Amino acid sequence: MKKRNCFVGQSGGPTAAINASLAGIIHECYNNRQFNHVYGMINGVKGLLENKYIDLLENFNTEDRIELLKTSPAMYLGSCRFKLPSYQDDPQTYQQLFKVFNELEITDFYYIGGNDSMDTVAKLSTYANTIHSPIRFIGIPKTIDNDLMGTDHTPGFGSAAKYVASSMLEIAYDSSIYKLNAVTIVEIMGRNAGWLTAASALARNEYSHAPDLIYLPEVPFSTKKFLNDIREVFKHKSSIIIAVSEGIKNEDGQYLDSDSKYVKKDAFGHILHSGTGKLLETIVYKEFKCKVRSIELNVLQRCAGHISSLADIDESFEIGKYAVKTSMNGETGVMMVFNRLSNDPYVIECDYQDVTRIANLESRIPVEWINKDHNDITKELYEYLYPLIQGETKINYKDGIPEYIDISHLTK
Amino acid sequence: MKKRNCFVGQSGGPTAAINASLAGIIHECYNNRQFNHVYGMINGVKGLLENKYIDLLENFNTEDRIELLKTSPAMYLGSCRFKLPSYQDDPQTYQQLFKVFNELEITDFYYIGGNDSMDTVAKLSTYANTIHSPIRFIGIPKTIDNDLMGTDHTPGFGSAAKYVASSMLEIAYDSSIYKLNAVTIVEIMGRNAGWLTAASALARNEYSHAPDLIYLPEVPFSTKKFLNDIREVFKHKSSIIIAVSEGIKNEDGQYLDSDSKYVKKDAFGHILHSGTGKLLETIVYKEFKCKVRSIELNVLQRCAGHISSLADIDESFEIGKYAVKTSMNGETGVMMVFNRLSNDPYVIECDYQDVTRIANLESRIPVEWINKDHNDITKELYEYLYPLIQGETKINYKDGIPEYIDISHLTK
Repeated sequence: MKKRNCFVGQSGGPTAAINASLAGIIHECYNNRQFNHVYGMINGVKGLLENKYIDLLENFNTEDRIELLKTSPAMYLGSCRFKLPSYQDDPQTYQQLFKVFNELEITDFYYIGGNDSMDTVAKLSTYANTIHSPIRFIGIPKTIDNDLMGTDHTPGFGSAAKYVASSMLEIAYDSSIYKLNAVTIVEIMGRNAGWLTAASALARNEYSHAPDLIYLPEVPFSTKKFLNDIREVFKHKSSIIIAVSEGIKNEDGQYLDSDSKYVKKDAFGHILHSGTGKLLETIVYKEFKCKVRSIELNVLQRCAGHISSLADIDESFEIGKYAVKTSMNGETGVMMVFNRLSNDPYVIECDYQDVTRIANLESRIPVEWINKDHNDITKELYEYLYPLIQGETKINYKDGIPEYIDISHLTK
Repeated sequence: MKKRNCFVGQSGGPTAAINASLAGIIHECYNNRQFNHVYGMINGVKGLLENKYIDLLENFNTEDRIELLKTSPAMYLGSCRFKLPSYQDDPQTYQQLFKVFNELEITDFYYIGGNDSMDTVAKLSTYANTIHSPIRFIGIPKTIDNDLMGTDHTPGFGSAAKYVASSMLEIAYDSSIYKLNAVTIVEIMGRNAGWLTAASALARNEYSHAPDLIYLPEVPFSTKKFLNDIREVFKHKSSIIIAVSEGIKNEDGQYLDSDSKYVKKDAFGHILHSGTGKLLETIVYKEFKCKVRSIELNVLQRCAGHISSLADIDESFEIGKYAVKTSMNGETGVMMVFNRLSNDPYVIECDYQDVTRIANLESRIPVEWINKDHNDITKELYEYLYPLIQGETKINYKDGIPEYIDISHLTK
């Protein structure tokens, strides 16, 4: 006899792997045959407060459908940017949510997301404990930034890293064709944590060293040193490629692109944040008067499902399955994590940790994994990153473009 | 007895398919067993003037090596931006080139490139004719812009179009997740011709209509109409995606990003050309005060070998082979072209045309293939574009990134 009903939601920014975790949850709920309903909240907790949800077991009733979901980027259930207020500040919101849970006889609640989503899981599980509700609240991490604590790495990061490394290699090819002094600056996402920018180093192979220089937000950025670094590289090669995190800060801890010295204004005098890469482009041009261009990898680094990492997609699916198993074992208020058991061969296991001890903390690159000159990464960091981008996901193409799961329920 | 020696060169900007044409030439020269040497000039005619060339038959002596070259982006031989002066202005350059040709007993000269490269082929063949040289000069077109006359389409365009369409689809996924009014502007290459921007329409499928609006340089751009178009789309959907060519011009024929009304300045008062997308971002934000972002696809649209079009790679290889056959048949001063014999099923044939009748002309989208409102393409243009992005090239991955041909001879 089926006794369980659950909610699943997605929150925060998209990744190429967050649907793989959703697929893992559906797959596990389907296979263990204890669930009557697996409800998907549309646009996260915010949508749930407006009673927006769909039945996922009905929607995903074949292995093929689940497989298509697994390899589709972005978020099938949509997202929200919603910071759940504390119970003390807003008891009504909690009462409203638990009213829906009770009406639908919910036993388990799965929330896939980043820091804010884990904060939501922490608050709901604490509240459930207070009112002696038996509902289990489980967090499944995802973020391309890899900045969640308690886990070896986050689902979604490996695919973004593979996109960044592959794009960096292709940019190196594009930059190789002319015999002239040139600087190419590639701006990569990551406001406070430089993991994704560091992953650009995975583009290096036996004959291409791009990126020649890597700048991360974990250490202060000095424009003077930056220009000196370029001058040094120019001594032995003509085309220089630089990877830079959007979030680099000067010695005063101020974001470079909000530094008044460099800020740009439009014709109306309004300040324009056109990005760190564009800013460095101007600085380099002024100094070297050579060909300079900046490339912003932009949202494609988080949604390019066609070049996702197989390791990432498979692990994201597994952690979704493991979330259901963990909940069925009676746990609540936990976030699923990966432990790395071995690096060569690469072996990880799924595990969980108390979500209240993880939420709202930030994992950044240890300074000892950044080189002494603060313009590259160490071998240790390279070896940490390497397994996460291995393997290619099989994507079908239809009419010349990737075939992904239908998302018309979000765009109508 | 082998009697022939040839030069091959590449020139202009990179594409994902220009090495496929080089591979086709090498393959054909190798197989017909009439060539002693196939020399590759490094950095085009400019490198040749400095005696920089390599032996390609030595370098590519297995089918596997040729296959790897075929699927590698950018330009194995490097490029140059070099406008060959006229013979009247600079006879010395011509004498110097033909001295090398005579020393190496060159019989055939293949130059793969865009408009400027075809101009070089035209000038060299005319000069050869004047001095009664028997050397044959053959042009092989390539450009992601698809703006060469005399050919149904250009090698390299299909792969760029596939990248643009696939990225547009993935951007549509990324943009679907929030329930709020938002405008995403995707800036696509093409200063005068809108073919590549038009190819973004290939992203549409049965459930996703992105891009909602398309703006091309072939018709004048009106900011007022643009804002009205957005207002109309907002009536039935919240997240709008716009494809815009970098080269759109206002009613006075002025590039939008050089219009003084909108130009941006840095802290030193210098004008910054930060691009059409960024400019429209500011304009849309001022009007609608909603979430707006612009995405520049940048160089990745021309060098993303990992998602090249199989149709394009195969055709580019064939046109390279056909160039050798054409030259062996005694032709000179011609550019290879494609004729489309049928659209459904898609059938093309290789052919050639007098290069002097083609060089320095520009092929742009016929206005009747742009809709009446000037914000979309017609069915005819869609059907013209569709076959060019079909099929996926098999790329090997090594260490998690695409495996391409070694280009260290260019970057040292």
